[in-house]
Amino acid sequence: MGLQTILRTRVRFGETDAAGIVFYPTFFAWFDAGMTGMLRGAANGRPMHDEQGRPRLPVPIVESGARFVAPLYYDDAIEIRSTVTELGRSSLRVEHTVLRDGEEVARGFEIRVLIATEGGRIAAVPLPPELRAALGDGTATADEVA
Amino acid sequence: MGLQTILRTRVRFGETDAAGIVFYPTFFAWFDAGMTGMLRGAANGRPMHDEQGRPRLPVPIVESGARFVAPLYYDDAIEIRSTVTELGRSSLRVEHTVLRDGEEVARGFEIRVLIATEGGRIAAVPLPPELRAALGDGTATADEVA
Amino acid sequence: MGLQTILRTRVRFGETDAAGIVFYPTFFAWFDAGMTGMLRGAANGRPMHDEQGRPRLPVPIVESGARFVAPLYYDDAIEIRSTVTELGRSSLRVEHTVLRDGEEVARGFEIRVLIATEGGRIAAVPLPPELRAALGDGTATADEVA
Amino acid sequence: MGLQTILRTRVRFGETDAAGIVFYPTFFAWFDAGMTGMLRGAANGRPMHDEQGRPRLPVPIVESGARFVAPLYYDDAIEIRSTVTELGRSSLRVEHTVLRDGEEVARGFEIRVLIATEGGRIAAVPLPPELRAALGDGTATADEVA
Repeated sequence: MGLQTILRTRVRFGETDAAGIVFYPTFFAWFDAGMTGMLRGAANGRPMHDEQGRPRLPVPIVESGARFVAPLYYDDAIEIRSTVTELGRSSLRVEHTVLRDGEEVARGFEIRVLIATEGGRIAAVPLPPELRAALGDGTATADEVA
Repeated sequence: MGLQTILRTRVRFGETDAAGIVFYPTFFAWFDAGMTGMLRGAANGRPMHDEQGRPRLPVPIVESGARFVAPLYYDDAIEIRSTVTELGRSSLRVEHTVLRDGEEVARGFEIRVLIATEGGRIAAVPLPPELRAALGDGTATADEVA
Repeated sequence: MGLQTILRTRVRFGETDAAGIVFYPTFFAWFDAGMTGMLRGAANGRPMHDEQGRPRLPVPIVESGARFVAPLYYDDAIEIRSTVTELGRSSLRVEHTVLRDGEEVARGFEIRVLIATEGGRIAAVPLPPELRAALGDGTATADEVA
Repeated sequence: MGLQTILRTRVRFGETDAAGIVFYPTFFAWFDAGMTGMLRGAANGRPMHDEQGRPRLPVPIVESGARFVAPLYYDDAIEIRSTVTELGRSSLRVEHTVLRDGEEVARGFEIRVLIATEGGRIAAVPLPPELRAALGDGTATADEVA
């Protein structure tokens, strides 16, 4: 097990739908926010974006999925707990759980690949050693509120 | 195989992210829009919402997942093709593919359950016969633009 | 000048667009989140939603506007400062500024009306005394992170 | 009066909120989609994005505002009518109305500026003659479904 991070936030009104609960694609946006927290730790204080606003560590998604256990409501206080569970040469698997009052309401995963654009072509590139170390270190825990 | 629907639309600017491609949770929002097209056909011209705006056929998500094959860009013309692949007593499984120029760029699924609120309690309820017939009829094809 | 609240958060990746900056409707979603913070203070610890997930203090928008001074980028740390500037019988005006590193990047306003649904009809209703007091008290300051 | 475009679409489920109506920042996302329709006409069939997915005609927002007249519900069929009302050297003003069944439910405006990035610096640039002609020609009408 690698890096674990926790993101604490509240359900925004715009994240709910007319059924009165959270619109389900929002959970994946929260997983993505959890991923940002992981990369932020690995960035060592440097900005997450380059001068044109693009992500300095682009990790597009390859596969994702989730199970939804209980509904979430407007303004519920939640935690997104993210854990690196696999590191490949260029890829990583992250598992996310969403909790309210300590109880799991959803659980999912993401598989992502680090890419670079060289000479106009996009290609998967190896995770650099310092990123691999940051993501793989199960003792580190970032705890963020956002 | 049951009902098949096609939704034609374009990638909106707000659906992209700073990496220059579609933000991946958007694909699940498109799957959800495909689901709406399926239920619209089953609604036989009645509105999809009740007098308070709530969905008249609430089918919250239980599980969802997707594989992402190729990036999509701002204003790309796309199709979301949705097919009912399983009908349970209260549940349904829908598979969705997203295509650009006829080529698949993503594929995913949703498992949903029809619920009703009775006496303040939410419970799964059997798919009513007319909905079951509408969703299960592989000969019907709704083709919507939205 | 009435209630003032501050919401601290970061720009999420999904809030940016392919131009590399924040997609502008997101600023209005942040204004809405600032409004939630104001109502939360007035709710005195009761949940913001009823048993069906609907807002217990529905304040739909009548008018809104904003000026945008500087772009925001992925993961920028921001503050949304919200101030009640007018209280009518049923309406309120809230002004919002968004700051990064203490510098204003956008400024806007919202005019909202408290409504209730009675006998199936929606109508504006007077702000109840305790809500009026909570919103009008310029000495109170809620400082939230979300 | 310059170019007029009409965008026909339906309210998506994810565009509603727990109050049962459309979440108001969505109206600005629709205005933005109307803007895309205007630029698409001016692009004469060329893609709206460059090879890295970035908009080829970046027109960031300077100011925006709207009045909201009536609520919109899940799956309502709507039209967004957009009209260029002012063309400056680098700027344009567009007015948008949102209609359901021919009745106006919201009305707003956007002021935008064409920019270019030269030598790492962002600057407003004059509207090129062909874009000016396309936006200023009140006889042209694009009618899009998306």
